[in-house]
Amino acid sequence: MTILDGKKVALETEKQVSEEIAALKEKTGKVPGLAMVMVGDNPVFQIYIRARDRVAADVGLNSNVVRLDKAVSTRKLIKEIDKLNHDDEVDAVQIQLPLPKELNTWEILDRLSPEKDVDRFHPVNMGMVLLNRTTIYPCTPFGILKILSHYKINIAGLHVGVVGRSFLVGKPLASLLANKDATVTVCHAETKDLKKALKDADLVVCAMGKPGFITADVVKKGVILIDVGLNYISNKKDVLEYCDEDQVKKFKTKGYAIAGDIHRDAYKKASFYTPVPGGVGPMTITMLMYNSLQLFKRRRNIE
Amino acid sequence: MTILDGKKVALETEKQVSEEIAALKEKTGKVPGLAMVMVGDNPVFQIYIRARDRVAADVGLNSNVVRLDKAVSTRKLIKEIDKLNHDDEVDAVQIQLPLPKELNTWEILDRLSPEKDVDRFHPVNMGMVLLNRTTIYPCTPFGILKILSHYKINIAGLHVGVVGRSFLVGKPLASLLANKDATVTVCHAETKDLKKALKDADLVVCAMGKPGFITADVVKKGVILIDVGLNYISNKKDVLEYCDEDQVKKFKTKGYAIAGDIHRDAYKKASFYTPVPGGVGPMTITMLMYNSLQLFKRRRNIE
Repeated sequence: MTILDGKKVALETEKQVSEEIAALKEKTGKVPGLAMVMVGDNPVFQIYIRARDRVAADVGLNSNVVRLDKAVSTRKLIKEIDKLNHDDEVDAVQIQLPLPKELNTWEILDRLSPEKDVDRFHPVNMGMVLLNRTTIYPCTPFGILKILSHYKINIAGLHVGVVGRSFLVGKPLASLLANKDATVTVCHAETKDLKKALKDADLVVCAMGKPGFITADVVKKGVILIDVGLNYISNKKDVLEYCDEDQVKKFKTKGYAIAGDIHRDAYKKASFYTPVPGGVGPMTITMLMYNSLQLFKRRRNIE
Repeated sequence: MTILDGKKVALETEKQVSEEIAALKEKTGKVPGLAMVMVGDNPVFQIYIRARDRVAADVGLNSNVVRLDKAVSTRKLIKEIDKLNHDDEVDAVQIQLPLPKELNTWEILDRLSPEKDVDRFHPVNMGMVLLNRTTIYPCTPFGILKILSHYKINIAGLHVGVVGRSFLVGKPLASLLANKDATVTVCHAETKDLKKALKDADLVVCAMGKPGFITADVVKKGVILIDVGLNYISNKKDVLEYCDEDQVKKFKTKGYAIAGDIHRDAYKKASFYTPVPGGVGPMTITMLMYNSLQLFKRRRNIE
């Protein structure tokens, strides 16, 4: 059994991004500019943003956060996005999701220039993924591809079960895996018989946000497991059920622990799996940097 | 076993479209305008265009064909599309595919205004399908949905096998079926074990363009079969293998016959199936009219 070490792949990828940015800075005097739009002050955002800022600094990107009050109107937010669309120093923009429910999320995401849409959630970018006409993908699916390719796991011909159909992960991932010659089964909350749907899958990706959603009995022996779930748990019974030893220790000191969507017992049947934390998670920030670099190069016609 | 009579569903849908167009004409003095761009004079195009013109006339749409020489340049074709984009009498444009290989198909399709893109192949429209943000779909997948809904086949919770991943059918269909709560497995030419992938499928849609691609052994008893294939066959051995009696007779008089992608023996295991011809085929033209009507109403802010 091999652990797919996302942290390691992230660091290697960041090293490459960092070297390329340094070389471009030498050549052009410029580095990619990444702007992050954050509405409100959700504490989970804060953890994410600190991690993101640290990686941005490590790879040598210019990053700044546009912080807006949680009572901001859709109209005011759109004005901020227009400013970023017209700011020549900004190559990439990320709008922190979820937005407060009072805001019109799609109207806001659609306003972002597709050329600066680092998360690739604009319909024209999503369409390009579906149509197999782009090599830039949403960060989480892209990170999964990088992990698989690092470990020389060839997707072509595999039967892949994608569990979850969000536009953040499941939908674009299913599309790009089919484009890369995998046979793909998309499952979700309305799937009646998960076991039947997944029992022949060579690779299972779960992005449901539900601890222990994939149990040992639904996957076959030798399966490759990719766990996108990042669930914060503060209930002792659930911690003991879903978390590994390290997280149980963490729970004792911090009062919460982290678990993925795939039950620990399912890992035991796997040939490869991504741990939580330290699997897919670190790659999402890395791919944000990677995508920012790609958008920088496209905007400035480099290479 | 029930035959899913696409011809009948097409006629009923056309009747509804026709009535709505008549009512709108009464109210606004206008009817939807559909322009079709055709490059070269492929004989299969001619059959299709005659059928299309007849249906357009039946439902009361204004339709016209822009015929261009097969040696037309991408630049010249783009100028024609710009004209249609700016023509206020044109609500919907279809560009007949495939275009000659000398032309840049994507550059041409991308040029069409998304608001007039009746086939929904523009990336922004494809993205809206993936994101579950539209109720207008590409004609063939949309026609399949209409047939299923006519026969009160509820997609939610079904395990559906979609065989083929073209942007015309497989990709958007897989996406919209998952959005409608089906568990969806996407198979294609690189799927290693079609039988394993399809053996539990409650519904199988095949759009491979290969006669007999779905054989009886790969589907379960009671399966619902939707056949998108429309294969012209002129070889006697293949006609006898793949075609039904009517088509065999046709072959004797005309020298060719039509077969779908699903082998006749597989139909015997089905609870419902679409015949070829007379299944999905007629619906594609009907849905072109239906979509044209929707685009007309959107452009003119009706309803």
